[in-house]
Amino acid sequence: MILQELQSLEACRAQADAAWQLMERLYPICRSITGEGVRKTLDAVGELIPLQRTEVPSGTPVFDWEVPKEWNVREAWVEDPNGRRVVDLQNHSLHLMSYSTPIRATLPLAELRPHLHSLPQNPTWIPYRTSYYKEDWGFCLAHDELQKLQDGNYRVCIDSTLQPGHLTYAECVVPGSSEQEFLIFTHVCHPSLCNDNLTGIALTTLLARHLLQSKPRFTYRFVFAPGTIGSIVWLARNEAHVDRVRHGLVLGLLGDRGPITYKRSRRGQADIDRIAAYALKSGGHASRLIDFSPYGYDERQLCSPGFNLPVGRLTRTPNNEYPQYHSSADDFSIVDRDCLAESLRTCANIVSIADRNDRYINLSPKCEPRLGKRGLYRLTGGAHPGEFEHALLWVLNQSDGSASLLDVAERSGLSFAAVAAAADALQNVALLRPAEPAQSWSTA
Amino acid sequence: MILQELQSLEACRAQADAAWQLMERLYPICRSITGEGVRKTLDAVGELIPLQRTEVPSGTPVFDWEVPKEWNVREAWVEDPNGRRVVDLQNHSLHLMSYSTPIRATLPLAELRPHLHSLPQNPTWIPYRTSYYKEDWGFCLAHDELQKLQDGNYRVCIDSTLQPGHLTYAECVVPGSSEQEFLIFTHVCHPSLCNDNLTGIALTTLLARHLLQSKPRFTYRFVFAPGTIGSIVWLARNEAHVDRVRHGLVLGLLGDRGPITYKRSRRGQADIDRIAAYALKSGGHASRLIDFSPYGYDERQLCSPGFNLPVGRLTRTPNNEYPQYHSSADDFSIVDRDCLAESLRTCANIVSIADRNDRYINLSPKCEPRLGKRGLYRLTGGAHPGEFEHALLWVLNQSDGSASLLDVAERSGLSFAAVAAAADALQNVALLRPAEPAQSWSTA
Amino acid sequence: MILQELQSLEACRAQADAAWQLMERLYPICRSITGEGVRKTLDAVGELIPLQRTEVPSGTPVFDWEVPKEWNVREAWVEDPNGRRVVDLQNHSLHLMSYSTPIRATLPLAELRPHLHSLPQNPTWIPYRTSYYKEDWGFCLAHDELQKLQDGNYRVCIDSTLQPGHLTYAECVVPGSSEQEFLIFTHVCHPSLCNDNLTGIALTTLLARHLLQSKPRFTYRFVFAPGTIGSIVWLARNEAHVDRVRHGLVLGLLGDRGPITYKRSRRGQADIDRIAAYALKSGGHASRLIDFSPYGYDERQLCSPGFNLPVGRLTRTPNNEYPQYHSSADDFSIVDRDCLAESLRTCANIVSIADRNDRYINLSPKCEPRLGKRGLYRLTGGAHPGEFEHALLWVLNQSDGSASLLDVAERSGLSFAAVAAAADALQNVALLRPAEPAQSWSTA
Repeated sequence: MILQELQSLEACRAQADAAWQLMERLYPICRSITGEGVRKTLDAVGELIPLQRTEVPSGTPVFDWEVPKEWNVREAWVEDPNGRRVVDLQNHSLHLMSYSTPIRATLPLAELRPHLHSLPQNPTWIPYRTSYYKEDWGFCLAHDELQKLQDGNYRVCIDSTLQPGHLTYAECVVPGSSEQEFLIFTHVCHPSLCNDNLTGIALTTLLARHLLQSKPRFTYRFVFAPGTIGSIVWLARNEAHVDRVRHGLVLGLLGDRGPITYKRSRRGQADIDRIAAYALKSGGHASRLIDFSPYGYDERQLCSPGFNLPVGRLTRTPNNEYPQYHSSADDFSIVDRDCLAESLRTCANIVSIADRNDRYINLSPKCEPRLGKRGLYRLTGGAHPGEFEHALLWVLNQSDGSASLLDVAERSGLSFAAVAAAADALQNVALLRPAEPAQSWSTA
Repeated sequence: MILQELQSLEACRAQADAAWQLMERLYPICRSITGEGVRKTLDAVGELIPLQRTEVPSGTPVFDWEVPKEWNVREAWVEDPNGRRVVDLQNHSLHLMSYSTPIRATLPLAELRPHLHSLPQNPTWIPYRTSYYKEDWGFCLAHDELQKLQDGNYRVCIDSTLQPGHLTYAECVVPGSSEQEFLIFTHVCHPSLCNDNLTGIALTTLLARHLLQSKPRFTYRFVFAPGTIGSIVWLARNEAHVDRVRHGLVLGLLGDRGPITYKRSRRGQADIDRIAAYALKSGGHASRLIDFSPYGYDERQLCSPGFNLPVGRLTRTPNNEYPQYHSSADDFSIVDRDCLAESLRTCANIVSIADRNDRYINLSPKCEPRLGKRGLYRLTGGAHPGEFEHALLWVLNQSDGSASLLDVAERSGLSFAAVAAAADALQNVALLRPAEPAQSWSTA
Repeated sequence: MILQELQSLEACRAQADAAWQLMERLYPICRSITGEGVRKTLDAVGELIPLQRTEVPSGTPVFDWEVPKEWNVREAWVEDPNGRRVVDLQNHSLHLMSYSTPIRATLPLAELRPHLHSLPQNPTWIPYRTSYYKEDWGFCLAHDELQKLQDGNYRVCIDSTLQPGHLTYAECVVPGSSEQEFLIFTHVCHPSLCNDNLTGIALTTLLARHLLQSKPRFTYRFVFAPGTIGSIVWLARNEAHVDRVRHGLVLGLLGDRGPITYKRSRRGQADIDRIAAYALKSGGHASRLIDFSPYGYDERQLCSPGFNLPVGRLTRTPNNEYPQYHSSADDFSIVDRDCLAESLRTCANIVSIADRNDRYINLSPKCEPRLGKRGLYRLTGGAHPGEFEHALLWVLNQSDGSASLLDVAERSGLSFAAVAAAADALQNVALLRPAEPAQSWSTA
């Protein structure tokens, strides 16, 4: 089984440190769904894993949408009547509503006020607001700061551009022995928000780095793209190939202290759903399974009825279910290194099971084969067999081509690792062969 | 959605008053499975809704049965040795065993006694007895009265006729945009018994009256017929058309204070079973679901294996499960106006959901369509969408032609009404079309 | 229904006494998977039921195995340095490891020691050990006795033969009206072990004796064979006919005081699985259902994926789950006559239900047929019908060819016996016919 090096929490803690470093580097960047922020982010990721970048021109039609104009910003601030900068993009990338159109004006507070967004219930937090599809401008600030503003004329500057350009996404492909793919999707469009989405970017990067050093069965495709429009663009450009996707995961929100949460695919009983359920149940940590809903991240597109891909989503606390979500309070203080490590280990566990979860054919299906003469069974009878011998019996008994190793593990109550080891041993003595064509799958 | 005027309990209370009036008018009539009692009952119903009456001659073969002789009675009494009328049909229609053959005789008590029926365990109640298929005569009386009878000769008079005639039933048809039918069946053969069956007759009448004022999708067929033999006759005469029946309900016993009880069809998972279960669960009142059994009312015939129609039964307390059942104690005292109102509201709710429960095709199934540009989605991002936006996403995501709106409501946890409103909105912007042919179904 | 004489616990107690006598006769015999011990055992069984014996030559290939050499032993003992026989086969057949090769030697304790097996945790019990597939020799003794052995030279004698010969098994066939078979398998290879396997041999014998006096629908085939290799040989010789097996049971370990335990077939939802579950639930005694696993007795072979026969297993406490298992403590003290009786009654109940569990076709499926004119229904209406009338309605309603009588019993909550009686009555008035061809099944 692959990724054995990530099965221990200790090993994953070291990786969590690497993730943390990457997150610290990415945090200040002013990301949006297009523009230099995404490119700088991909630059940083690209130093750790090889990325193939795609630039899609503004205006390109993608299903019911089109690629938006590219947005970039140099500076953005508000000066009060005393010339004090009361809001400044330099201080926090959330201060500017994403996709704000350029403006340079002096306005009385009453006219400025509708362009100022705050969170009255959390008066020290800056909200996250976007206006991708309606040309508008706005600033976001703490409600306490907003309250302090006095009447008078305010100077407003947004030195942004919203012009034809490109939408940028990147892929890292880890070739496997099969052309069938395991798709891993993470969004890269949020500005200085830590759990959502820096944890997703960082853990996806590290998972890819480890898979690059393994010999997986599936081809793994990691996609780093802006949320929603990024997956729509990716699906539009890859429509002819999505039947290659045998499993998929959307990764994000993986560093907070909530239980690890798997959201099922729209299919509900896809292999990935069963594998993730097994990995969570056997992981020894708090976890929960939730049903698919069409609200969330890129699973909305990947699981739209016209695609219905077998893609689930792994988070800790889901979007919108923790108070700091989409505000400046989603910073490093709500992220925990041990939680990051546990999330990575869970990802690795899901991937390693999926990669090994073959169906087999018992080549001696009539009665049990004689294991003793092949060195696989103790020769003195009367006493109880051990776990390995039980696993041999289970794999032989169930391998009629219909049961996967996960099926065998679940039906027998034995661990997936024990069942996989038994399948290896039985293949070695020619009592078992994979149910699927040999050219597709290598021996793990 | 149709019948919105019956979704509030207040509106239904006014209807319960109308039902009560009809029940008071019908209560004294001596009904049986044939004869003038049925015709008088249909006369009264026919003043409220248009009825098409069918008269089927005695002797007509209907499957394993034949239409019985018609029975009518003018008077029936017993006089004790002192000339006192100790039992008299004039006092209560239950005093005479239904289908009693004519007799005029003087008998000693010992010979009369086997013809007298009482309920020793409820000595003040008159039992309800019939002898449709064995020619016999008998009287029913309170056990206390029976005990008082002294030896001596009794004069007995039953001035009845049991002769070739007709079996009578009536239908009220509410045409819909489709020829597919929703069948509603109620029995009209019980004499002065209030919960069973006057409540069924009255609420069925009022439900029909409301549907006549709506524009339903299904054609609604209300059948008022004697129990068992009436549904056998109706099925025999409509055998060629029963495949039109897409949903059905047997209504009766709807006024007592027990929980509203839905008995599943023989199929167990027919659409009507799921719709009724949803309506009961979301109705905010005590309710229960019970499985099909071949004992009960006309569902016995409608769900016989040769027909197996998708017909469930709605009652409050089922037949035979309340002590007053089939006795003179089943009178107005055990019927409650609020319970009648609640039963009517439940019927209306089931009907309105069934009538609206389409399956749809998402016309933009690859990725989400852009709702904002169609005015269906807020344009500033970052904050949580509301129930309507969630309902839009759910309907779009699930509408691959396989999921009904009820499926969407149940999977999403949203109300059926919210889901239906979303489907309307999406149809209006041409993002959705019904999965079934347009000529069958109108837009609700 | 057949075997009604075994439906009462009292009747089964008398049979338990007969079982006990057979077990006492069989207990001292030194059985193994081949040899005279098996033949003597079959001699004793053959005095109670007719057996057809099969002798299969050593070396015969059977799937991945071959029939082993035949093993017999005349004497076997160990003498200590003082000439005292410290271990002697004459005292207990477990003292010799089964299939021990001949030896006659004098050895120091240190050399003898690896050949001595004991149970340190139960120091007064003799373990049961075998070495069928590795030529070796050994003795088994109580750990307390082992501890007492002092240094010095020991004389060892095993006067055994391990030579080409035969494997012996026997069958008792009870012909039924159908060629479809109910297979009952019990192993006959254990030496002086009482619950495992004398109780299985004895109850199987008595069950066969009773079936021989009945007129069953299925053909019943009872196989008495050594465990594992016996079922492998039987399957190899009967490979062409196993599709006749419609139900099957492996019997054994039926006398201890644990709850009656049914282990499902590999299929999990075969008819035998449902019948056994119903018999256990309705049996009025402690019982449990466990899932299939490929560890146990001959179900390992019968349910191997190349056969996957609908065969379950009935035991009380399963193999390996009671402390005395496979040791000299598995003697008469752990067997209880009432438990034997209860086990036999359960076997009889399963068999009688399976034999009667037809599917039927209602010959008057449109509406209910008129039962009153056929004398099957009370004629005065209004009162509640009894269990028999309910059973008639249920059988009529469900008999569309898909539901078995057990399905009807389970769905209705009525007893299987009541449902079967109703089916008989309905067949008698030509309202019902079996769903399967008449030549296969007689009327029970």
